[in-house]
Amino acid sequence: MKQVERIGVSLEEKLLSMFDKLIAKQGYQNRSEAIRDLIRQQLSAERLSNPKVKAVAAVCVVYNHHATKLMGKLVDLQHSHILQVISSLHVHLDEHDCLEVIVLRGRVGQINRMGESILSMKGVKLGRVNLLATVPS
Amino acid sequence: MKQVERIGVSLEEKLLSMFDKLIAKQGYQNRSEAIRDLIRQQLSAERLSNPKVKAVAAVCVVYNHHATKLMGKLVDLQHSHILQVISSLHVHLDEHDCLEVIVLRGRVGQINRMGESILSMKGVKLGRVNLLATVPS
Amino acid sequence: MKQVERIGVSLEEKLLSMFDKLIAKQGYQNRSEAIRDLIRQQLSAERLSNPKVKAVAAVCVVYNHHATKLMGKLVDLQHSHILQVISSLHVHLDEHDCLEVIVLRGRVGQINRMGESILSMKGVKLGRVNLLATVPS
Amino acid sequence: MKQVERIGVSLEEKLLSMFDKLIAKQGYQNRSEAIRDLIRQQLSAERLSNPKVKAVAAVCVVYNHHATKLMGKLVDLQHSHILQVISSLHVHLDEHDCLEVIVLRGRVGQINRMGESILSMKGVKLGRVNLLATVPS
Repeated sequence: MKQVERIGVSLEEKLLSMFDKLIAKQGYQNRSEAIRDLIRQQLSAERLSNPKVKAVAAVCVVYNHHATKLMGKLVDLQHSHILQVISSLHVHLDEHDCLEVIVLRGRVGQINRMGESILSMKGVKLGRVNLLATVPS
Repeated sequence: MKQVERIGVSLEEKLLSMFDKLIAKQGYQNRSEAIRDLIRQQLSAERLSNPKVKAVAAVCVVYNHHATKLMGKLVDLQHSHILQVISSLHVHLDEHDCLEVIVLRGRVGQINRMGESILSMKGVKLGRVNLLATVPS
Repeated sequence: MKQVERIGVSLEEKLLSMFDKLIAKQGYQNRSEAIRDLIRQQLSAERLSNPKVKAVAAVCVVYNHHATKLMGKLVDLQHSHILQVISSLHVHLDEHDCLEVIVLRGRVGQINRMGESILSMKGVKLGRVNLLATVPS
Repeated sequence: MKQVERIGVSLEEKLLSMFDKLIAKQGYQNRSEAIRDLIRQQLSAERLSNPKVKAVAAVCVVYNHHATKLMGKLVDLQHSHILQVISSLHVHLDEHDCLEVIVLRGRVGQINRMGESILSMKGVKLGRVNLLATVPS
């Protein structure tokens, strides 16, 4: 069983009331939950600045599926990096364009390099590598 | 058939050689491809600042699948926003954690609001809303 | 006198110990201080998404001071927007380049438009508009 | 004298017309200027991911000048890092708050560490480290 601790935080009334309003709008049920999320985001951001940290990423690419050979190359690339690619999701956006979300796993540096190979492929119109470092609950 | 235009760009030798080195490292096959990608990113970023523009988003969330009811709530939320949610992908990260990528479609403002509802759910440890505005080839 | 409140936050031992390590490295003297900073950043980021919110910005530009007329144009632009420009700082980087930090004040939308006018000026090599929304202590 | 080169870029009519509209709105006088800026931003962003690269930064902090000793500490910190701090600018925001912009110079890693020391000081309410890597014209 995990050990839960309780800490106290002092802050001025005005800051607290603005925070309460913001997290109510976002849908949080209580402050602890919202503050834990801020802490986890901060930890994740800090860890992602180290290229050796293990992370997971969703690489999102929009591409034209008429671009000959792109789909095949994407599949090849995924298989040649089998250890890193976990899964992918393909969505038809319109008659020309697709969105492909490729979930990668590995060290931050590796993921970024593979992300660059994907985003620079001919036919890929737009894309981004979205990294998340795993952190404790 | 789409009309392709050709424009000229002047730049200093040193800047060009640094750019050539960078795009070779990233894997681009030619400069036009790399410059088109920069232009599309810029256009996408500018469009996403308008809450009314149509966009697609991959909302990535890491959550503990032991968190009772979270998975059910995520499914409910997706069904109650059926017009916006296109598809989702579920990945097992370890014995506790899952990554779920939820692809949404709609106006930037709507997507951000739905993203906030998801990220603020109890049990969601980390997450991000990754928006892409569609732009021409 | 400002009213200070004290709230309790529950979080798991492991998350707390990682957070403690991070904020010690950053130089914080206590957790309240670090958590207040996270809250203020979050509030500032949320407010800056509204173009009508009042904010302050440091527009940083690197430019070649041999670029004829740029310095004059920057001064003109600052005077023609006298209500918004508070102050500026000029730093000599090397024999060619200068850094100019221009502090602007106004609504987010206005600041961004004026920032774009500055960054697009001929001779400006690099730059960024760094916005901060004022929040309570 | 610097050598200027001229390269050709092919892109579809629709993408070009959207780009032309965007850069006109931003205030650019010609496409070459706008494309050079995109290239420099990309190069700067890529260089800043390396902690050893030389850069310049504007650290912006908002703080309450009633916070006893903060101003003294900021001055001390600047003097003890005399090689890195170039200059600073102080702006009175209202009866309580000041904005201080501190221009630092050094390697990306050093700047980030010094930035963290500043942002974590008691009394600093908000702040950001804005890095720019110098790139050719």
